[in-house]
Amino acid sequence: MKNISRRQFLTYVGAVGGTSALLKTSIAMGLMKEDPFKGPVKVTPAPIKNKPSVLILGSGIAGLATAFELEQAGYDCTILEASFRAGGRNLTVRNGDKIDEMGHTQICNFDKQDNLFFNCGPARIPGHHKRTLHYCKALNVPLQIKANSSKMAYFQDDKFLGGKPKRIIEYHTDARGLMSELLWKSADSNTFNQMLNAEDVEKLMDFSKAFGDLTENGKYIGSERAGSITDRMLDYPQPHAPMELKALLDSRFWYGGLLGAELYDWCEPLMEPIGGMDAVVKGFLRHLKKPPVLNAQVKKIFNKANGVEVTYEQGGEFHTVTADYCFNNIPAYFMAGIENNFSSTYQAGLNSVKRGHLFKIAYQMKSRFWEDDGIYGGISYSADAISQIWYPSHDINAQKGILLGAYTWDPKHSAMFESLTPLERLKVGAMSGEKIHPGYSKYIENGISIPWARMNHQMGCGMRMNKDDFKTYFHLLQKPEGRHFMIGDQISHHSGWQEGALASSEQALGQFNHLVATNRT
Amino acid sequence: MKNISRRQFLTYVGAVGGTSALLKTSIAMGLMKEDPFKGPVKVTPAPIKNKPSVLILGSGIAGLATAFELEQAGYDCTILEASFRAGGRNLTVRNGDKIDEMGHTQICNFDKQDNLFFNCGPARIPGHHKRTLHYCKALNVPLQIKANSSKMAYFQDDKFLGGKPKRIIEYHTDARGLMSELLWKSADSNTFNQMLNAEDVEKLMDFSKAFGDLTENGKYIGSERAGSITDRMLDYPQPHAPMELKALLDSRFWYGGLLGAELYDWCEPLMEPIGGMDAVVKGFLRHLKKPPVLNAQVKKIFNKANGVEVTYEQGGEFHTVTADYCFNNIPAYFMAGIENNFSSTYQAGLNSVKRGHLFKIAYQMKSRFWEDDGIYGGISYSADAISQIWYPSHDINAQKGILLGAYTWDPKHSAMFESLTPLERLKVGAMSGEKIHPGYSKYIENGISIPWARMNHQMGCGMRMNKDDFKTYFHLLQKPEGRHFMIGDQISHHSGWQEGALASSEQALGQFNHLVATNRT
Repeated sequence: MKNISRRQFLTYVGAVGGTSALLKTSIAMGLMKEDPFKGPVKVTPAPIKNKPSVLILGSGIAGLATAFELEQAGYDCTILEASFRAGGRNLTVRNGDKIDEMGHTQICNFDKQDNLFFNCGPARIPGHHKRTLHYCKALNVPLQIKANSSKMAYFQDDKFLGGKPKRIIEYHTDARGLMSELLWKSADSNTFNQMLNAEDVEKLMDFSKAFGDLTENGKYIGSERAGSITDRMLDYPQPHAPMELKALLDSRFWYGGLLGAELYDWCEPLMEPIGGMDAVVKGFLRHLKKPPVLNAQVKKIFNKANGVEVTYEQGGEFHTVTADYCFNNIPAYFMAGIENNFSSTYQAGLNSVKRGHLFKIAYQMKSRFWEDDGIYGGISYSADAISQIWYPSHDINAQKGILLGAYTWDPKHSAMFESLTPLERLKVGAMSGEKIHPGYSKYIENGISIPWARMNHQMGCGMRMNKDDFKTYFHLLQKPEGRHFMIGDQISHHSGWQEGALASSEQALGQFNHLVATNRT
Repeated sequence: MKNISRRQFLTYVGAVGGTSALLKTSIAMGLMKEDPFKGPVKVTPAPIKNKPSVLILGSGIAGLATAFELEQAGYDCTILEASFRAGGRNLTVRNGDKIDEMGHTQICNFDKQDNLFFNCGPARIPGHHKRTLHYCKALNVPLQIKANSSKMAYFQDDKFLGGKPKRIIEYHTDARGLMSELLWKSADSNTFNQMLNAEDVEKLMDFSKAFGDLTENGKYIGSERAGSITDRMLDYPQPHAPMELKALLDSRFWYGGLLGAELYDWCEPLMEPIGGMDAVVKGFLRHLKKPPVLNAQVKKIFNKANGVEVTYEQGGEFHTVTADYCFNNIPAYFMAGIENNFSSTYQAGLNSVKRGHLFKIAYQMKSRFWEDDGIYGGISYSADAISQIWYPSHDINAQKGILLGAYTWDPKHSAMFESLTPLERLKVGAMSGEKIHPGYSKYIENGISIPWARMNHQMGCGMRMNKDDFKTYFHLLQKPEGRHFMIGDQISHHSGWQEGALASSEQALGQFNHLVATNRT
């Protein structure tokens, strides 16, 4: 036995490690990273005497990161921020915090507890958002896994299964089963015989069986993968009756729900800073040499021969400041109202940027009823205007929790919520929640909502450009005009994500290095 | 505007909440829970005078839970444990801890840090394991999300794509795309016209497009869902070239890898106790009135007229104790070596239980290189004997981490590892890891392995029974013989999970209540 084992071992080692060709292949592969991010741009250091000055307009993530990198390289940075607070759409509210909505100031009434917070803007970070993750590490922002999808959560649609919510795991499993059954049937009825040989048709049938959990005869009759109607610990498992193919085809969850975890930015696992996304803002602020100038609303921006002149209003007074360079994080659609001397093409580009509508509700729930239902984080999808319900995945088993009761970026749904008072919004959200979780309303202690398109100093979230404008103008906005750079997630292909904001900053700083080199020669 | 909005609101409210029929439907649905667990069995309270005594053999999870419930109900419980430690296969090792392998005692050399631990046995809890979650809550065991699947992790097989590891997200996306393309083609070529009407065929084609991210013409040409070969923040996304259908059909990841997150027990999100799974054991021990008697190896078990007599050996001395009832958590395959007076059928049942083989390696890695590669938890799948690599999802951005470098329950692979010395196992594991992560070996600081089938007092993990024996005997083992109850995950339909162990305890306690009622009348 011992000898045989030894031989087995040596054979195994040979098979595993002997052929260096194989190893070389994988090493070569490992070097072929598709991801170009290798760390932030190394900004050309400022001369020690006569440090160049930089104005940064807006303290959103792009503004903060740009200031941070420039300060590290020795530049003198001033951030002008129109709001009473820094961070832009990276906003986390807790007890006593203000949501500065036009005409409807809301104060957060959550209990005064660290774990009761609401990320009004960004709330999750996928593993391939390397810039965001880089700054979390560099700024000592502690991260935890955020469960973004839960198979135990629900789909609910009044027009699907009579409005009865269905667990995502059942919908997913049935969808895979039903489509695999069709595929098996096609393979079995020679549909693919012209393109596949007999052996591959056989494999395709096996694949369908595995993918859909079909019977030996290629039938889908429900699957244990979606659980059991018996107590499967003490008895033989018995799958739920599957839904009909017709019901699947008529359902409206092909996008969003069915695909949620399949989209690249939502690929599991996602992360969140412990204690709230604003830990990223706080991280930058801790490291900045000069804090942002708050309540400073920009009124004029003029490119000059060797710099930029900016006028802002603060407490009713106007101030004009000059700097060698300017990085502008202000929503582009505000630029039409800010006096400037940009070229007409550049102005047209700025004006072509449209506001995205995004709306969220958060409720403080007096108990974490969803955990009793097997849900520990993730998202339920609703065909109502609320679109989504998010369950917190931190502080499991705590008494209370903040539930995201609505999250929609559908302009139609957002507009409906925007037209309501904060209290009405909460009521509408509660009615839709009730359809997924009977008794939902009675757990609500208080709530707060954020219609980003009505927020002072933002008036939108996730910029939109039509396809033609994008082609015509976007490349212009990605470059400086004079010594003025537009930044922000709006100047990325990935608006609505912090990673887009950071990429814009990185791109602008790369161009800044060029400009500095040019100006010196 | 205001008026229109108000009307919109009222219309909306009508649509959402007006039809009480809908709400009633969903409420009715909510009451139809499939899950029968409503909390632990209420054990019949012990009489205040002459408390009945209970012997519990083995301090695995089933033994601990049984003792806990019985003590709460006033019984006098004694746990006899053969090992030097309590917990059975719920074992977490840290610096200095011993892995008590037959002939190869291993001492854990991880750095002395709280976050450097290795869950040798159970390591994750899905949201529907209600018993396990109940005890975590009842015993104040804090939980966190454990990322069990990561789309950023890899598949690697020497026989697939020339051994080059492929990100799971690429494999998944391509698999969905390729099978959707076939489905679209079938629908388009009238394969389903006999079973579906024209409208449904149309919907099926739309469904295929959505599911697989096909072009308008039903072609799969790669998908942004698997990322981009360009920097998608700053440029138009450009999908990876998809793999060939042939490569997919020839690959060996249909099971395990492709299905991992589709299986019910691995449905996202999963959880883990913060700091290690043995927090569950510690939770029970904190709450038990009498700690387990350690190093007490049971040698004889005899059912008597009104109780049970057990003889155990401790430090070379034999002790005989009696009790009114006995719950036996000892691996059933050890019972052949323990003298007893059970019926021959019951003995045959015990003897039909076979040992499962399960093997794990854990490495201390000097840096968390996987995080630089976008992986924050989850599992890479290997076709080598290691089968899986697990990345820790806790303590993100810490300097070091414990990587699970092998996890197999394939008896063939386990047997190979079992035949090696601990050092050889680490070397074999490193060679396979190297194929997924070039440079893997140079991060390894130390490692430890656990071959459960060679562990003193366990000699197996995850019981196995052949189908016929299961039919013949299992129902007998689920019931007491005399006043002796078998418990443990082995006496559940879900061996290898703590939930199975707890279910067995629950079932036995329910029968205990019956027996107590019978004995009193």
